[in-house]
Amino acid sequence: MAEPEAAPTAGREPFGSRLSRAMAHRGPLCVGIDPHPGLLKAWGLNDDAAGLERFSLTVVEAVGSLAAAVKPQVALYERHGSAGIAVLERTLASAADAGVLTIADAKRGDIGSTMAAYADAWLRDGSSLAADSVTLSPYLGFESLRPALDLAAEYGRGVFVLALTSNPEGASVQHVGGVDSVARRIVEAAAGENSRYPGALGSVGLVVGATVGGALQDLQLDLAAVRGIILAPGLGAQGATAADLKETFGSAYAQVLGTSSRDILSAGPAVGALRDAARRTLEPLLAR
Amino acid sequence: MAEPEAAPTAGREPFGSRLSRAMAHRGPLCVGIDPHPGLLKAWGLNDDAAGLERFSLTVVEAVGSLAAAVKPQVALYERHGSAGIAVLERTLASAADAGVLTIADAKRGDIGSTMAAYADAWLRDGSSLAADSVTLSPYLGFESLRPALDLAAEYGRGVFVLALTSNPEGASVQHVGGVDSVARRIVEAAAGENSRYPGALGSVGLVVGATVGGALQDLQLDLAAVRGIILAPGLGAQGATAADLKETFGSAYAQVLGTSSRDILSAGPAVGALRDAARRTLEPLLAR
Repeated sequence: MAEPEAAPTAGREPFGSRLSRAMAHRGPLCVGIDPHPGLLKAWGLNDDAAGLERFSLTVVEAVGSLAAAVKPQVALYERHGSAGIAVLERTLASAADAGVLTIADAKRGDIGSTMAAYADAWLRDGSSLAADSVTLSPYLGFESLRPALDLAAEYGRGVFVLALTSNPEGASVQHVGGVDSVARRIVEAAAGENSRYPGALGSVGLVVGATVGGALQDLQLDLAAVRGIILAPGLGAQGATAADLKETFGSAYAQVLGTSSRDILSAGPAVGALRDAARRTLEPLLAR
Repeated sequence: MAEPEAAPTAGREPFGSRLSRAMAHRGPLCVGIDPHPGLLKAWGLNDDAAGLERFSLTVVEAVGSLAAAVKPQVALYERHGSAGIAVLERTLASAADAGVLTIADAKRGDIGSTMAAYADAWLRDGSSLAADSVTLSPYLGFESLRPALDLAAEYGRGVFVLALTSNPEGASVQHVGGVDSVARRIVEAAAGENSRYPGALGSVGLVVGATVGGALQDLQLDLAAVRGIILAPGLGAQGATAADLKETFGSAYAQVLGTSSRDILSAGPAVGALRDAARRTLEPLLAR
């Protein structure tokens, strides 16, 4: 089912370029939209589709003109079935209206025509779930993601492929293989894929935890060579500061999109308080 | 976010036991419900939610009293956004009414409270998407799936974790690590997890491609020791025969649930023809 390698569609700006521009103008902050049951409760909302919608649209209103991107966590919409997915559709549309880029945090992955169907859902013009980019999971091999890589290139959209995470159990897959580790294979494949995007950063990003610490050195991962954005969840509540990000990512820090969810979201439901919390998170990220 | 290890809820039959019983009574066949655009067209249906629903309910009507399980491919519903997910909800309900077990082929995987949200969506009583079981992807480590493993145990539901697939690019992750390969770690973790289910087969199954050939020997994977059902996609259109399954899986063949999608589905849209195609696929699987 691999489609032929296609050059980015002429006339449509590639996602890597769009996101780089947003990061340069607004700063390298992505705000996660994570309507966890506990946060809904803290905001005085019900754990239902109506609460989900109120939560999501409030976050977009608060940070839509401030963050480089927002990242709705798909699992938290899927919990509410088709009604939740309908809220996600409205959330993505609202973010597009607000002029903020979207990263659908779906961690999808499959093979062949099934992977093509996931690409259709998240990356094709006209799909009700189309986002600017989607996160993908490569247990079936980086190349199994080909239909999404190609559709993203065609439509000026992007992907973020799971590479190295900081959860302790992640090492049992990602660190395996020593100097030729699973994580390193993903990093090198992403670098190769980004060679189809000349000039600016490519549209194939990676997910690398903000708190991976020395694992990047231990596994000899050259993230600067990837020439793509590094989505780094784990700012704030999960324990990383802006200084940690700079130390962890070193020469690749300019590509890092720091991601914070709970730390900012727990400042809600007031729009002004959410905005202030996002600004407080963003400020130290700007001091490169 | 790991929850404490819980014994299967007293009074509710574990999924491994329910599926083993269905395989013993009906034979080891799972029919994939894969409403691919090409199949919808071949059936004279539109590639929209109405076509998706007609397709899905027809398959359930045809094989609901014959197959041990049906496996809707979630990506093909997600392609149609919230309207497609609503059709999936009705498909799962229709399968439950027909008395056939369901495997939601979603290949979900994440960490912590996000993984718990996926577990909520697919495995919790009262969720509109609750299936008898769901497929999971372990790039973040087998233990990252803990919330789903525990919720499945609590509710008498099950999971199938991706272990070893036959797509050529799968080896670049799954075979890494030599004698201590990624695939072997997943197989051994599933075996450990099934020790919480005494007696019959446990509720933690694995996805292993029907066409993996000699990779099971090469990687020294002991599937019989897993004491769980092996979901083996790839019967028919993808090239494996019942004889291949027996040769590939050897002593673990009694645990294998052969899965066929396109070969059977292309016999539609007539219910009788679909049923005949399913029977033809099932017959050689029965001759153990």
